[in-house]
Amino acid sequence: MNTIEIPKTVNPDLAIERKNASFNPDEMAAFFWGRKEIVDMKRMIEEELYNDLDDPLDHEFASYEEMASLAVKHAVNATKKLRAIQERIHPGGSEVYPTLMGGPIGAALMPAGNPLAVHLVMFTRALKGQGTPEQYEKFGRRADNCEIIGTYAQTELGHGTFLRGLESRADYDRKTEEFVLNTPTLTSYKWWPGGLGQTCNYCIFVAQLYIDNEPKGIQMFVVQVRDEETHKPLPGVHVGEIGKKLGMNGVNNGFLGLKNYRVPRTNMLMKNQQVLPDGTFIKSPVSQLSYFPMVYVRCMVAISNALMLAQAATVVTRYSVVRRQSPIEEGQPEPKVLEHLTQQMKVIPEIATAIAYRLAAGNLHFMYNETAEAINRKDFSRLPELHALACILKVSCSYDSTYGIERLRQGCGGHGYLTAANLGNLFAVSTAACTYEGENSVLYLQVGKILMKVWADVLEGKKLMPTMAYFTECANRPQFPQWTGTWDCLVRALQYACVGATRVAYKSYSARLKDGQSQPVAVNNTGLELTKAAELHGRVYVASNFYEEVINGPTKSERSPQFQKVLENLLELHLIQTFFRHLGDILRFVPVTENEIAALQIRLEEVLKKLRPDVVAITDGFEFHDKVLNSALGSYDGNVYERLFEAALKHPLNKKPVPDFFGKYLKPFMKENAMKSKL
Amino acid sequence: MNTIEIPKTVNPDLAIERKNASFNPDEMAAFFWGRKEIVDMKRMIEEELYNDLDDPLDHEFASYEEMASLAVKHAVNATKKLRAIQERIHPGGSEVYPTLMGGPIGAALMPAGNPLAVHLVMFTRALKGQGTPEQYEKFGRRADNCEIIGTYAQTELGHGTFLRGLESRADYDRKTEEFVLNTPTLTSYKWWPGGLGQTCNYCIFVAQLYIDNEPKGIQMFVVQVRDEETHKPLPGVHVGEIGKKLGMNGVNNGFLGLKNYRVPRTNMLMKNQQVLPDGTFIKSPVSQLSYFPMVYVRCMVAISNALMLAQAATVVTRYSVVRRQSPIEEGQPEPKVLEHLTQQMKVIPEIATAIAYRLAAGNLHFMYNETAEAINRKDFSRLPELHALACILKVSCSYDSTYGIERLRQGCGGHGYLTAANLGNLFAVSTAACTYEGENSVLYLQVGKILMKVWADVLEGKKLMPTMAYFTECANRPQFPQWTGTWDCLVRALQYACVGATRVAYKSYSARLKDGQSQPVAVNNTGLELTKAAELHGRVYVASNFYEEVINGPTKSERSPQFQKVLENLLELHLIQTFFRHLGDILRFVPVTENEIAALQIRLEEVLKKLRPDVVAITDGFEFHDKVLNSALGSYDGNVYERLFEAALKHPLNKKPVPDFFGKYLKPFMKENAMKSKL
Repeated sequence: MNTIEIPKTVNPDLAIERKNASFNPDEMAAFFWGRKEIVDMKRMIEEELYNDLDDPLDHEFASYEEMASLAVKHAVNATKKLRAIQERIHPGGSEVYPTLMGGPIGAALMPAGNPLAVHLVMFTRALKGQGTPEQYEKFGRRADNCEIIGTYAQTELGHGTFLRGLESRADYDRKTEEFVLNTPTLTSYKWWPGGLGQTCNYCIFVAQLYIDNEPKGIQMFVVQVRDEETHKPLPGVHVGEIGKKLGMNGVNNGFLGLKNYRVPRTNMLMKNQQVLPDGTFIKSPVSQLSYFPMVYVRCMVAISNALMLAQAATVVTRYSVVRRQSPIEEGQPEPKVLEHLTQQMKVIPEIATAIAYRLAAGNLHFMYNETAEAINRKDFSRLPELHALACILKVSCSYDSTYGIERLRQGCGGHGYLTAANLGNLFAVSTAACTYEGENSVLYLQVGKILMKVWADVLEGKKLMPTMAYFTECANRPQFPQWTGTWDCLVRALQYACVGATRVAYKSYSARLKDGQSQPVAVNNTGLELTKAAELHGRVYVASNFYEEVINGPTKSERSPQFQKVLENLLELHLIQTFFRHLGDILRFVPVTENEIAALQIRLEEVLKKLRPDVVAITDGFEFHDKVLNSALGSYDGNVYERLFEAALKHPLNKKPVPDFFGKYLKPFMKENAMKSKL
Repeated sequence: MNTIEIPKTVNPDLAIERKNASFNPDEMAAFFWGRKEIVDMKRMIEEELYNDLDDPLDHEFASYEEMASLAVKHAVNATKKLRAIQERIHPGGSEVYPTLMGGPIGAALMPAGNPLAVHLVMFTRALKGQGTPEQYEKFGRRADNCEIIGTYAQTELGHGTFLRGLESRADYDRKTEEFVLNTPTLTSYKWWPGGLGQTCNYCIFVAQLYIDNEPKGIQMFVVQVRDEETHKPLPGVHVGEIGKKLGMNGVNNGFLGLKNYRVPRTNMLMKNQQVLPDGTFIKSPVSQLSYFPMVYVRCMVAISNALMLAQAATVVTRYSVVRRQSPIEEGQPEPKVLEHLTQQMKVIPEIATAIAYRLAAGNLHFMYNETAEAINRKDFSRLPELHALACILKVSCSYDSTYGIERLRQGCGGHGYLTAANLGNLFAVSTAACTYEGENSVLYLQVGKILMKVWADVLEGKKLMPTMAYFTECANRPQFPQWTGTWDCLVRALQYACVGATRVAYKSYSARLKDGQSQPVAVNNTGLELTKAAELHGRVYVASNFYEEVINGPTKSERSPQFQKVLENLLELHLIQTFFRHLGDILRFVPVTENEIAALQIRLEEVLKKLRPDVVAITDGFEFHDKVLNSALGSYDGNVYERLFEAALKHPLNKKPVPDFFGKYLKPFMKENAMKSKL
């Protein structure tokens, strides 16, 4: 048996779940993706995109060079296809290309990762956003058109988060009107940019500008690194791959060293600041807005990680109703593993969490658009609030999705460990987000600092930003109101916990200031308490947003009563699970009796039972195409064992009956041992 | 630059840490490994073993078949070397071979995993433990001598934890005095056994025995699967690799299908039960001891996972004093990242946790040996206690090491994502232990069930086993004694939390029984509360054992005052961290005021500061050879950046200036785009 047939039918254990669901998953799809029309378009596009994909296991068994080659092939094909669709349905729009190059569809099209991602997301945008119109004409248009491929080279081998610590330098030579670019040390080598290894021929090189040895701050320079015809590195350029990673090995992350590499003066991006031919430096007039683009990127990270968690939850839900194990009653047949309460607790809360983050990130995206419009009207008032929310959402969603995916994977027992389950890959992609686009601990500290300012404002009676207003409310009413156990009460308990943690942190922080510590030293020394307060602020935002969406959301009137009930159950689960997760933080500041806690425990067990019959329909409603899930454990038809077997048979070692290592190592070893024992 | 020189000197940022430590790491080494003599032997053996190893990155870039071949080569070499050393220093002993085939030294010798592991650990032992003397002579001696290579084929594609659910069957044919072996369905294919794919030629096949179609329970059969000369699968045998995994890809996990495959009657392992030639079945007289070997294995899992956590902590500690980032004071140079309090909190508690588990597993190992002796005297009294401890230690150590390694990895920022850091690999190996040798959730439930029995005994005033005695103490004194904040008080608080959780679970459980639910149904429905109680029992065991070792340990009198102080700081940290981790569980049952909590927060921050100067010496004292750590970020010399660069330069894509994919995909794509834009 060297092949196996996959049944054309749906596994009956999965089919019955669909039959018995209380609601139509299309309703969930419209809710989860925003609108029915989006779902329709998504379905239409996916059918077209996936009709000729390579086997996604190909790159897993390929040699390293072949894998890299496949990744480039897939990225080129994906770019062509998505541009063609965009051209057809809405020329000049951006809803298909480059949006779908990332996210679940991008993952289906480019299973080893996208070596053109930084080109699309950052190189082209930086040329547009930071370059002059002339620079856009010269570089940006060609980049947009993929006539050249670039990347964004900022982080260095020895320098990441702290931008001002970069060692790369650009010295202006006014005689030739050129910049002389150097990476003077090993630690100043550019390190990590996606596509820098071998796929790009240009990059934006971020360096300290010096004029007459005077530092002028961090600037961006367009640098050609490879010849457009031969693709050979240009003289003075040392470029290559940084090596194997936990995941996304097709992304071609690279290093770059430059030695006295000269570029014309006009290669510095000069929309906001300029170096004139005579070496005069004109500073940027703007500074306040520099972190606004990061808000957008972090919002995207949160959405993308929420979707990865939802994918993993889909896979494990389906597997959990196909896999049977360990009778509950002695002598009974083995039930679906999802009948075990502990398995329900592993799977169903992650479904609710994924939805909670999906909604929170959607809300943040909406706020981002509102704020972008306000900024156009020169109203910057909501920027700090947005910055804080983007930070905590990025952090808590990346953490929760990462650890959630891992717990879900463990919920598949050994089979989750197989590459064919695709859960390890989701984990690897998800966890990367914990350290990129703002390292998580650093972001939590930034939010903690903001909360210190907020609490000072509370003490001074100042009016707070809308998503912070609860600080004033709780401060004005220090005793927690009567415990009722309602959803409102549960959200309120989180708010009191956050406010309590903030107050306690503020006390430590101000004591340190009073002791004579400088503000940054006091922040560092209060780092643990600030992190806790920031974490809780994130919980409040996600929980209260979920509550608002379910109870007062704009689409509420369109929901069927059955679907509304499902959403309410998911909300109930999310709030109670968050309560238990932060029980210590809550009990410090909110008096909850043992009886009240016991009542919540019962509600937790009950709501798991209530949701149990609908979990397949809910995750079906997430609308992940089989090509996206790419999982033997989680395909729509639930033919788990056949698909595991099919994947195993693709293993290169199964292509011949006896592997070379037998004759080379094993046989001599066994024979030698036999010989010795006869002596 | 295609090579880079690694400095022969220690990075000064790391050297100064060693110079300033308060104690001699050799003291930690003796403490951590048990005795100075063990450390000396370990050093001597490692020097000999590591003198001719392949580059551990080789297998990372090899094709799949080459990787498998390297894994076999390494396993054969490791076996030969360790047997030779064993032969030399203590013929017939077992302290070198096969002990060192696993654990950190095994990982250094076999970086892709050990395809002979199951042969060594289970195949040979089962032949010895379950076979008759004649069977040992026929199969066991050859297996011990590696003249044949076997594996232990129990789990099936559709069946894992629940042994009685296995579908493989063995029908006795009394005419020919043979068993007819079959895997009658796809889900009954054997799946997972290490080495089954292509490295073994024998296996123990675990199946339901049928005599005249009457089931006789699960039995073991010696089955030859490949020809000894040609290594070709024998007729009726379908065998192969199960596919790529998150880690340990060299282990050659395999599948096996048998079709009417006949073996002689004497191939059933018959030490404890027999099938006579006429088909008479003689049942095993023993049943109580069947899980005793599992206690040993779980103890080994805990030790091995504790060591993996310690390895990761060593790597990240060293990296954290070499990596510099983000000034704490505005305008100051970038400090070592370990000066950031949040980084201390990421790293130092994991060091303490690793030590706590190392000690707990060591203690369990000691109890195991004691119990083994008692069993020889027919005293089975401590077996249930030992079983419970082995379960919870295996579970909590595998969880904590897995998630701890991942947090540590994230503590290295992006660089932790590189394979060259070896943290991803540690994670992948560590997390496998969460689902093998007893799936963690299942084990927690088993312990939870034991705790229900314990609580019933408490209510009846029965005497409890020594490690459970605190249940009675707490029950007899329901009010928590005066809060003092001492270590004793912190351990006591955990005990009250565990007893409270057990009492609450018992209440729910007995209410369900009273409601008419059967015992197993009530257990399932109380699964979440039972899991919580079991988890806390584990915390109590680990914390109180750590406390005992530091305060009353047998080696205490030999410790220098400086080293004793370090151990006390580690204990303080572990107890306070555990307190905060279980704050909610504690506050439910133990009244702790906000001031008392705030005081513990300050102690936490203080003890991190106290330990900070000693962390390099502590982790040096873990005595992990560079070949074991195998990490660019964590080598003893701290030349982090040079080693990262060295690893990158080994990447196959860096071997030629222009990759093939340029001409094949990229150039046509860019040129086509340029052409179109000119139209």
